[in-house]
Amino acid sequence: MKTQYYTASSLDGFIADQNNSLDWLFQFGSEPEGESSKFVSEVGAIAMGSNTYEWILNNHIKDDAPRPQKWMFEQPTWVFTSRRLPIVENADVRFVSGDVRPVHKQMSEVAGGKNIWLIGGGGLVGQFYDCALLDEIIVSIASVTLGGGAPLLPRAITNPPLKLLSATTYGSAFAELRYEVCK
Amino acid sequence: MKTQYYTASSLDGFIADQNNSLDWLFQFGSEPEGESSKFVSEVGAIAMGSNTYEWILNNHIKDDAPRPQKWMFEQPTWVFTSRRLPIVENADVRFVSGDVRPVHKQMSEVAGGKNIWLIGGGGLVGQFYDCALLDEIIVSIASVTLGGGAPLLPRAITNPPLKLLSATTYGSAFAELRYEVCK
Repeated sequence: MKTQYYTASSLDGFIADQNNSLDWLFQFGSEPEGESSKFVSEVGAIAMGSNTYEWILNNHIKDDAPRPQKWMFEQPTWVFTSRRLPIVENADVRFVSGDVRPVHKQMSEVAGGKNIWLIGGGGLVGQFYDCALLDEIIVSIASVTLGGGAPLLPRAITNPPLKLLSATTYGSAFAELRYEVCK
Repeated sequence: MKTQYYTASSLDGFIADQNNSLDWLFQFGSEPEGESSKFVSEVGAIAMGSNTYEWILNNHIKDDAPRPQKWMFEQPTWVFTSRRLPIVENADVRFVSGDVRPVHKQMSEVAGGKNIWLIGGGGLVGQFYDCALLDEIIVSIASVTLGGGAPLLPRAITNPPLKLLSATTYGSAFAELRYEVCK
């Protein structure tokens, strides 16, 4: 069982642009399909922050969403929030707040040996990192720069550094870098 | 003849940390040797900004430099600065300021068919990009995050996006991504 931060970013390290948009990402069509669905099939529990959750609601779920889509995760999903947020029908979403450690323990139990996927944002993933609960970082670097936006991971991880496991290209649009977090 | 931005960065898109230090980079020893010297052998002219030049002076050239080293470039080097800066003995350094276009023209003539290397920082490279004078971006992504610092390239390049040409790993320390800038 691994706890993995799996996300797309720009070459300059942003996961959303300054308008909180992912249009720069969507221009490439869907992400590398085979790889992504293999990853998801090995996931038993998901965590995300409130901004990420609201982004999904606004972009996919709400009646006036620009890219209407049903809730996309079969796995139980923990949403870290200090605010009251709308619920989604037929989605296994659990609202939590505070210390990530007891939540991670609960997620591990529910995941039943499968992996835990931290979707983001960077601030929430940083909290898991701070508690030595982050095992891998897998970044699909899209072939763009954004010049500003939401940071990939607002932490200095230099000593020890990360350990690069692999680099894979998907056409001219994505380079997927996979890292182990050393402890 | 290509104009290339060749640099090292962190996974989160910084070329120096918040203290303007590269210690996070030096921990990996010298950069991938063969690849780097092949690159440099095809360079006929170099440009850098004043901060980069001063960083080299402070870290390598001055009497009390922590990593004493002679001037490391054989190629003629243009330093963009609006300030008066110290000169280095036996170094072919030309101080310039203002519009990058006439300087690029002069560099192209001197380079004699070889490539132009933009060392950085990101702001200067952005000016070449703005004038459609940047052909390639080659980034050695070191296996660290910094959480802040000097940005790789403070521009939004999304439409058209960059074109990923290759991804190469050097052990667990570096992933080198090579991009063509579409025009």
